[in-house]
Amino acid sequence: MSTNGVGAGPSRGRRAAGSGTRGRILDAARSEFAERGYLAASVRAIARRAGVDPALVRHYYGAKANLFAAANGIPAQPEYLVNAVLAVPPELRGGQLVRTFFTVWDSPEGRQRLLALVGSLTTQPTEAARFREFLLREIFGRVVQAAGGRDQEMRAALAASQLFGLAAARFMLLAEPLASADVETVVGWVGPTIQRYLDPPED
Amino acid sequence: MSTNGVGAGPSRGRRAAGSGTRGRILDAARSEFAERGYLAASVRAIARRAGVDPALVRHYYGAKANLFAAANGIPAQPEYLVNAVLAVPPELRGGQLVRTFFTVWDSPEGRQRLLALVGSLTTQPTEAARFREFLLREIFGRVVQAAGGRDQEMRAALAASQLFGLAAARFMLLAEPLASADVETVVGWVGPTIQRYLDPPED
Repeated sequence: MSTNGVGAGPSRGRRAAGSGTRGRILDAARSEFAERGYLAASVRAIARRAGVDPALVRHYYGAKANLFAAANGIPAQPEYLVNAVLAVPPELRGGQLVRTFFTVWDSPEGRQRLLALVGSLTTQPTEAARFREFLLREIFGRVVQAAGGRDQEMRAALAASQLFGLAAARFMLLAEPLASADVETVVGWVGPTIQRYLDPPED
Repeated sequence: MSTNGVGAGPSRGRRAAGSGTRGRILDAARSEFAERGYLAASVRAIARRAGVDPALVRHYYGAKANLFAAANGIPAQPEYLVNAVLAVPPELRGGQLVRTFFTVWDSPEGRQRLLALVGSLTTQPTEAARFREFLLREIFGRVVQAAGGRDQEMRAALAASQLFGLAAARFMLLAEPLASADVETVVGWVGPTIQRYLDPPED
């Protein structure tokens, strides 16, 4: 994994974060997301706030989802994460989602960042709303959509709930043997749960 | 549900909390749990700190688990919760655990209390450790133990993880339609997940 984060290309590295134009864009993104929420925010409005051309924002960050991730210190690009899950056959995506999640968060820095994020979500309902919109639309919604079938929003929320709880039990409660288990052991236990939520209901 | 909380008998009501002897006992319990953790703390030592007879502590609160719950503002007695789950046949306990969990937390006050608790767990590792010991020993551990089979600690941690994540998605992220779904709808979706963790692995 590069120091630029999972799926971050060479032109999107940390070294430039906070500096000059990129810093202005991220500041503008944070303001726009805070004021309008994730879904209503637009790359165009963020560019206007930053005083740059929208094409420059897209050149640096690509889609709005990537900009949200960068503005919130999420060490991965959503597009990369979703592609990593969709790259495997549908019946293996439950486990793959667990693996991909761990790739992002299961490091000392990732754990620390995730705990800080969860702590702030418990006290700031509008921040929780932004993250809900982002996670369900850009990550879990896309994976469930690819699987098709009914109740897609419910299934996306449930898949998110199990991964979220897994992170809480492993990183916050440090519940053994879950906290120290290697990733493939956790995949073996939790993968089928996620898979059941991803799969289209049969009835 | 009485204002004394789920499973709280008439002699264990809120009205006396913080006052006189009960208040001293709860203060002593908080100090003892904070210093020694949940597992190492004893009712005897808590009574000594409070300057009362251990029999009086047991008269007011029963087991150590109930005292921990009362000292931490958990609006239910652990013993009652576990009995409510074990009262149904083994193959129905997954759904029953979801129902029982909601009985405790799925009210405006319960949600608020749970969010405050989770927020403090993210910043206070020793408090998280106490809650881990309490939850895995007194709630999830007991239900898994009753089911038997291998990997009981892992299964208890996983059941806790799904319920924890369910609470986060429903109460904190407010992810629809999960956030507004009635309890039996949630039981229908999440019950089978909890059941799989409770059931003894077949291989």
